Amino acid sequence: MQSVTERLRKFRDDRDWSQFHTPKDLALSISVEASELLEIFQWKPESTPVDEEMKRAIEDEVADIFSYLLLFCDKTDINLVEVTNKKIDANQQRFPADASRGIAKPRKEV
Amino acid sequence: MQSVTERLRKFRDDRDWSQFHTPKDLALSISVEASELLEIFQWKPESTPVDEEMKRAIEDEVADIFSYLLLFCDKTDINLVEVTNKKIDANQQRFPADASRGIAKPRKEV
Amino acid sequence: MQSVTERLRKFRDDRDWSQFHTPKDLALSISVEASELLEIFQWKPESTPVDEEMKRAIEDEVADIFSYLLLFCDKTDINLVEVTNKKIDANQQRFPADASRGIAKPRKEV
Amino acid sequence: MQSVTERLRKFRDDRDWSQFHTPKDLALSISVEASELLEIFQWKPESTPVDEEMKRAIEDEVADIFSYLLLFCDKTDINLVEVTNKKIDANQQRFPADASRGIAKPRKEV
Repeated sequence: MQSVTERLRKFRDDRDWSQFHTPKDLALSISVEASELLEIFQWKPESTPVDEEMKRAIEDEVADIFSYLLLFCDKTDINLVEVTNKKIDANQQRFPADASRGIAKPRKEV
Repeated sequence: MQSVTERLRKFRDDRDWSQFHTPKDLALSISVEASELLEIFQWKPESTPVDEEMKRAIEDEVADIFSYLLLFCDKTDINLVEVTNKKIDANQQRFPADASRGIAKPRKEV
Repeated sequence: MQSVTERLRKFRDDRDWSQFHTPKDLALSISVEASELLEIFQWKPESTPVDEEMKRAIEDEVADIFSYLLLFCDKTDINLVEVTNKKIDANQQRFPADASRGIAKPRKEV
Repeated sequence: MQSVTERLRKFRDDRDWSQFHTPKDLALSISVEASELLEIFQWKPESTPVDEEMKRAIEDEVADIFSYLLLFCDKTDINLVEVTNKKIDANQQRFPADASRGIAKPRKEV
């Protein structure tokens, strides 16, 4: 993951794009790409299997989301793996396994 | 990153939540969380510095986006780092450094 | 509809909020509210009927989306009904009824 | 506005598309179109004036958002103007003009 961030940073700097990458615009970009991923599933029943054509389109969007997410974290000085681990810790408290089992949106404890 | 995926998988399975995690609903969840990240910047000028309170809120949302992104890739059998590296390769062709320098949205070559 | 726009304008100006309402931030706000509407359907099968509790939450979000949409059009000097009628005209050309019948995403003619 | 809804309904039924229009997929579609509107402002400073080319792209997306919003309300039996007026009433209570003046995100009273 570290080497991906480094490639993205070099890609950005070779094009002098850092000037456009405000945290706000990077957050906007993550949201726009996430929406493009979602669009692939528009009008498709949840049970639709992911075929090869969908898979390629999905991979493309997933890569865009991850790229902007890494660039956002680079810009705001966030350690993505660390904050995610912390959030999993917190969620283990908020959603005790027994009380949450099989419930799509359990009421939050906090 | 692999160990985060494993923790998320265990968290999900301990609660029997895999049944809700269709690719479509995971894509929807990435989009919803990306939007919550974006909301932090609502009505704020791009130049607003990220203060400590914003930082904590941002870390929380970034962790949610990454969690759903990893769960999505786990479900659809996608290697996130691999597809992102492939996309960077492709973008290097599409946006030659010299022709794209300092241009926010260069016209795509392909 | 005109009277809703007038109420929103007065509401905004009574609070001196027009200064925050750049077209970009209003577009961001429409997107954020649309995402909150979508969140109501998260983890719910498409066939789930809309019950009274969902209905109230939905009405709330739909009102927010429409409010920001009207404020956006007010700011950018767009006649919402007019541009929508024009778009329906265009879509009638792009998606001829016979060729599009029962196909969720017909290939666009243009 | 009523006549736009009627045109959209006819457009939908002439193509037998009602079968795809679950409330969830219509909410998803509003969100996807809102994101396409937002994308027009990506990497652009908030102060960027809306030129003619942007204006045409914006009109196109605004029409799509409104179309799906009307189809969503038609499907879920919501009176868009009525719920928006009710929301403005509520917001007048939640955000008293004096306490909210010039504050982008006033703390909610409720």
